[in-house]
Amino acid sequence: MAVGDVSMPQMHVVKGVKIGSAEAYVRYQNRRDLVIFEFAEGSNVAGVFTQNAFCAAPVHISKAHLLAGNPRYLVINTGNANAGTGKIGMANAEATCAKLAELAGVQNTEVLPFSTGVIGEQLPIERLVQGLQPALDSLQEDAWLDAATGIMTTDTTPKGASEQFELDGVLYTMTGISKGAGMIRPNMATMLSYVATDAPISRELVQQLLKTTVNLSFNRITVDGDTSTNDSCILIATGQAGGVEITSETDSRYAAVLDVLTRVMKRLAQLIVRDGEGATKFITVAVEGGADTQECCDIAYSIAHSPLVKTAIFASDPNWGRILAAIGYAGVPNLDVEKIQVWLGDVQICKDGGAAADYTEAAGAAEMEKSEITIRVDLGRGSAQDTVYTCDLSYDYVKINADYRS
Amino acid sequence: MAVGDVSMPQMHVVKGVKIGSAEAYVRYQNRRDLVIFEFAEGSNVAGVFTQNAFCAAPVHISKAHLLAGNPRYLVINTGNANAGTGKIGMANAEATCAKLAELAGVQNTEVLPFSTGVIGEQLPIERLVQGLQPALDSLQEDAWLDAATGIMTTDTTPKGASEQFELDGVLYTMTGISKGAGMIRPNMATMLSYVATDAPISRELVQQLLKTTVNLSFNRITVDGDTSTNDSCILIATGQAGGVEITSETDSRYAAVLDVLTRVMKRLAQLIVRDGEGATKFITVAVEGGADTQECCDIAYSIAHSPLVKTAIFASDPNWGRILAAIGYAGVPNLDVEKIQVWLGDVQICKDGGAAADYTEAAGAAEMEKSEITIRVDLGRGSAQDTVYTCDLSYDYVKINADYRS
Repeated sequence: MAVGDVSMPQMHVVKGVKIGSAEAYVRYQNRRDLVIFEFAEGSNVAGVFTQNAFCAAPVHISKAHLLAGNPRYLVINTGNANAGTGKIGMANAEATCAKLAELAGVQNTEVLPFSTGVIGEQLPIERLVQGLQPALDSLQEDAWLDAATGIMTTDTTPKGASEQFELDGVLYTMTGISKGAGMIRPNMATMLSYVATDAPISRELVQQLLKTTVNLSFNRITVDGDTSTNDSCILIATGQAGGVEITSETDSRYAAVLDVLTRVMKRLAQLIVRDGEGATKFITVAVEGGADTQECCDIAYSIAHSPLVKTAIFASDPNWGRILAAIGYAGVPNLDVEKIQVWLGDVQICKDGGAAADYTEAAGAAEMEKSEITIRVDLGRGSAQDTVYTCDLSYDYVKINADYRS
Repeated sequence: MAVGDVSMPQMHVVKGVKIGSAEAYVRYQNRRDLVIFEFAEGSNVAGVFTQNAFCAAPVHISKAHLLAGNPRYLVINTGNANAGTGKIGMANAEATCAKLAELAGVQNTEVLPFSTGVIGEQLPIERLVQGLQPALDSLQEDAWLDAATGIMTTDTTPKGASEQFELDGVLYTMTGISKGAGMIRPNMATMLSYVATDAPISRELVQQLLKTTVNLSFNRITVDGDTSTNDSCILIATGQAGGVEITSETDSRYAAVLDVLTRVMKRLAQLIVRDGEGATKFITVAVEGGADTQECCDIAYSIAHSPLVKTAIFASDPNWGRILAAIGYAGVPNLDVEKIQVWLGDVQICKDGGAAADYTEAAGAAEMEKSEITIRVDLGRGSAQDTVYTCDLSYDYVKINADYRS
């Protein structure tokens, strides 16, 4: 069960984006496990991808195709990650692009492939390719929910965010989806996420917007510290709602788009944590008073990755010594523990490196009972701050990952 | 239940070492939670301690007292870590040393204090101090099993190793104990471990022997990646079995002692993993063919810390894609995945970065069913190698850590 409100909002259509899906039986029967995106000609597209050295075949090919120019199609399968699959995996990803390009009448490089699911098995390429025409036949604008559902693996809920905004009298839409619940500690990218707007934005700025907002969203979440082989996040600007193209950061509309995109990306990233495998609590770890952002981030991740902190939160146990231990082993040099303050929600649990005098176990326990928990740390040595989002570690995390594949 | 053979060997007495214990009711009733070691005058003692910035009060004081010279006493309590306890915690640790020093007629600095247990609560100092005289009254040579039992927390079994060896016709003994099951990823030290020999070794060489062997043993294990606030490892050489003091590495007896000590330390470290919280499998992660030891170690720890790898092993599921993913996100630069080979036991699962052609799921599953699992990785880019030991991640890890304190 996901934590808190994870409901799908009204998913506004994005002019210039069509979505199709089909049952290709990649791994499971009776589910739409093949999704296609089609973008209007002239759309600008940017992508960021996993830093995992074992990155999947489709990641290699998506990167190469993006270098060649803007794509017109994305093709996404679930059930099989096409990672750790060597030369056959590369050939299968290329064959998928080639077949879709042939059917759609575009160049191979105008198709980006994506896969998610089990690592180390070959794609059932014949079944996959047979699903392409039915998916193309189903293309329509109002199918974002189908896409969000189609790309799920261990997710328990489809994930979407959508906003409308006005720039110089023109109404624009920004709509996106994401998926992911385990093997989540994106590094410069995410599991899978696709965000599109019909605002007109130059290719350079689409890339810049994506990079900036990924660092505020998908690069600040963790479920289990495992960086996937397939993380990919794609931003599309079709320009189909009209208006003059935004080509410079100094255009006041750039800041407005950045603002909307940041909210959409943060929501999509946090939805992944709320649906983290086995999650029962949504945890915000905010570190402030740091000398620089990196050390705030290091300490926030150290807390967010600690199995001991995560199991204590699962048990609603204010065992805050485990938080101190995680701060202490984050590897930040010359940390003066006597300057460190720690709060659980509004309750100060640690003052100047020791237990706060007015802290009571009852007050800590009351905070821990909540399903949304904030751990705030002040390092008392500067003005930098950073925030990471995570979830607890429950029996169900073990169950889900011990059972997956069986 | 611990994994494999964790039985206590015959714990040979070490001439010049006496051990006492008492029930001080630090946290639980009816258990000997206070242990004292007494060393003969002239013993050389070395220690290594946690690198956690939030290191416990007793760690601060033990370090300071060791700088002043060789200690005559160690005093160890379980049930309370005296960490995150600020100035009161420091005063309590000092008071413990002062009282024992007074009762035993030595200087305060000749006593080293150690604590293990819950972090962030103050020691029940009055009960602790009242236990010192009864513990002193019970001092005897043949009490290593009592000591190993006395220092346990979530351990399910006492941990010990003991060997006898002959140098230049003199029979010497090396005996040690350790404790720890959770919050285990020692960094330059361990949870708690005490090893003593009656061989005559200079203070400088005792320190060097400890540092060398800790890096081969306690610094190569992990249960949950959480580095404790209290890790300490102490080596004592009493010299009471006679013979000429070893003062140089070139003395052939030095190599012989190093050899025995390495075996004893490795056994004590591996016992901690075999008794890791919730452990059902003992896992050896051996990485070879690296450009340097550090990258072998980074990749080994990346695999050993992956919750996905650990839950797959708990489930006996040869889901080897998770191993590849963990190799890939270890942060080793310029890794050529096409040169990587991975074995599970004797079964090659990954050849040149993809599935080995003759690999079968049945062969992988057969390896995974074993309680002792070896993951071997060849990076194909050099001759360095390193090995890390860990255990799986089971329901019981979550249960133990969600319930601890309650």
